[in-house]
Amino acid sequence: MDLIFLSGWPVVVEQPIAWGDMDSYGHVNNVIYFRYFENARLEYFRRLGWPVSVRPAGVGPIVHSTQCRFRRPLEWPDRIAIGARVRDIGDDRFTLEHQLISDKWGALAAEGWSIIVTYDYVAGIKVPIPDDLRCRIVDLEGRPF
Amino acid sequence: MDLIFLSGWPVVVEQPIAWGDMDSYGHVNNVIYFRYFENARLEYFRRLGWPVSVRPAGVGPIVHSTQCRFRRPLEWPDRIAIGARVRDIGDDRFTLEHQLISDKWGALAAEGWSIIVTYDYVAGIKVPIPDDLRCRIVDLEGRPF
Amino acid sequence: MDLIFLSGWPVVVEQPIAWGDMDSYGHVNNVIYFRYFENARLEYFRRLGWPVSVRPAGVGPIVHSTQCRFRRPLEWPDRIAIGARVRDIGDDRFTLEHQLISDKWGALAAEGWSIIVTYDYVAGIKVPIPDDLRCRIVDLEGRPF
Amino acid sequence: MDLIFLSGWPVVVEQPIAWGDMDSYGHVNNVIYFRYFENARLEYFRRLGWPVSVRPAGVGPIVHSTQCRFRRPLEWPDRIAIGARVRDIGDDRFTLEHQLISDKWGALAAEGWSIIVTYDYVAGIKVPIPDDLRCRIVDLEGRPF
Repeated sequence: MDLIFLSGWPVVVEQPIAWGDMDSYGHVNNVIYFRYFENARLEYFRRLGWPVSVRPAGVGPIVHSTQCRFRRPLEWPDRIAIGARVRDIGDDRFTLEHQLISDKWGALAAEGWSIIVTYDYVAGIKVPIPDDLRCRIVDLEGRPF
Repeated sequence: MDLIFLSGWPVVVEQPIAWGDMDSYGHVNNVIYFRYFENARLEYFRRLGWPVSVRPAGVGPIVHSTQCRFRRPLEWPDRIAIGARVRDIGDDRFTLEHQLISDKWGALAAEGWSIIVTYDYVAGIKVPIPDDLRCRIVDLEGRPF
Repeated sequence: MDLIFLSGWPVVVEQPIAWGDMDSYGHVNNVIYFRYFENARLEYFRRLGWPVSVRPAGVGPIVHSTQCRFRRPLEWPDRIAIGARVRDIGDDRFTLEHQLISDKWGALAAEGWSIIVTYDYVAGIKVPIPDDLRCRIVDLEGRPF
Repeated sequence: MDLIFLSGWPVVVEQPIAWGDMDSYGHVNNVIYFRYFENARLEYFRRLGWPVSVRPAGVGPIVHSTQCRFRRPLEWPDRIAIGARVRDIGDDRFTLEHQLISDKWGALAAEGWSIIVTYDYVAGIKVPIPDDLRCRIVDLEGRPF
């Protein structure tokens, strides 16, 4: 599919829409868009080398909040591309932007963001972003923050 | 469960958490919170008398955007109560607030909102909120807007 | 709701159907019935004292196979009760039966079974059912096998 | 991925596993396998020219029963291929076989079947398989039944 919309984004994943993603309105259910965003977010984490298979034994990501703006209804069958990129980095958190492109529409179908906090899963507290993680984000994005 | 947190809210639904709502971190997955919000939202729509079983033949609700702020992790087994209430009403949209209370925590676990646009599903355009719908919202909320 | 259908079953859980459980046919999606079964199964495991929150460190349950016979379509809003009981016990496995009752239908909506194997998650092999687990099943069922 | 396992199957769909498909055991949840099967089944229906976007206005498919035999645990990240083919055809039903291949395992991860009944959604009764549907199945399978 044409990924001109997401050119320059460091992480883009593609997938088919599932028939079962649609609800009784005959469109992809609103909730599912967040699963689509999550798919790009976890690929982003994986490329940062973050432990994501099971609950982290050390510092891992925790989602503080997330938002989606629905722009176009999606229907099966279709293919989508979902992008993730870091918008800004704070002391103990960073913001991931998400865009979702529909192959059928050839256009943006949804956009949103997630605020990710660096969390010590053993101590149960949020912690400053580790320096090496910050460096890996800069590397992946290819630009300073 | 103790619903003191949601006292005064016009619509509150209760449900158990499902084991399968948890992801590989051993917590309820972020995406599922939006399903929980949806459960309260659809009950709100049902009480407004809106057609929600299948795609509406006339004016129905469409979600413009939605957000969730995660405050506490949820784990099975637990019971939750989810509230929905209208915060404000515009010309062709209104905002629903959501709060999610965990029985185990005895506290707020998440809060968020959804902007709902009144949409003519046949014409494929957004339309002003019908007067009778506005009246039913005022009735259900028990206060003017 | 009237649970005459499941009287005598050792484990019965109740829950509302979620609007989002329906697919674009306007009925609860077939896949979701297995989530409903799972809800009763995990309650069964919990009452056996089995570690179910995270991947077990010792012997835990693993699903070998499962089946569902769909008898009636489900639609939101409705409440359901799901029962689980052991049908038979083998050397390294046992069979759980499931029945799903709809409040709206006042009748059986689905039935099925799951074969559960006792699995050593550390060694990665199936193992004989531990004696104390077998005793707890007999206790919970209130009858010998 | 290597599809030698599904060579000769008339319908095969491919997709990535989603991180959120895993449950708190750190494996893809049992329920999700049925969603994977459904993805191949709906592609099969689509290729038969069956109306699948919304509830059919005439004769459509209804799932009578379905089963899954889990052979290997799946973990994100991975890619899977799911096959669907007709095993046999009766008067008012046919049986679809499913196989699910994991790219990471390079092997069969699950197999199962679904019995599909031809159902008149307006009259609310099962009906004999229409002749043209039977012909389209034979065409798609490339062999007589």
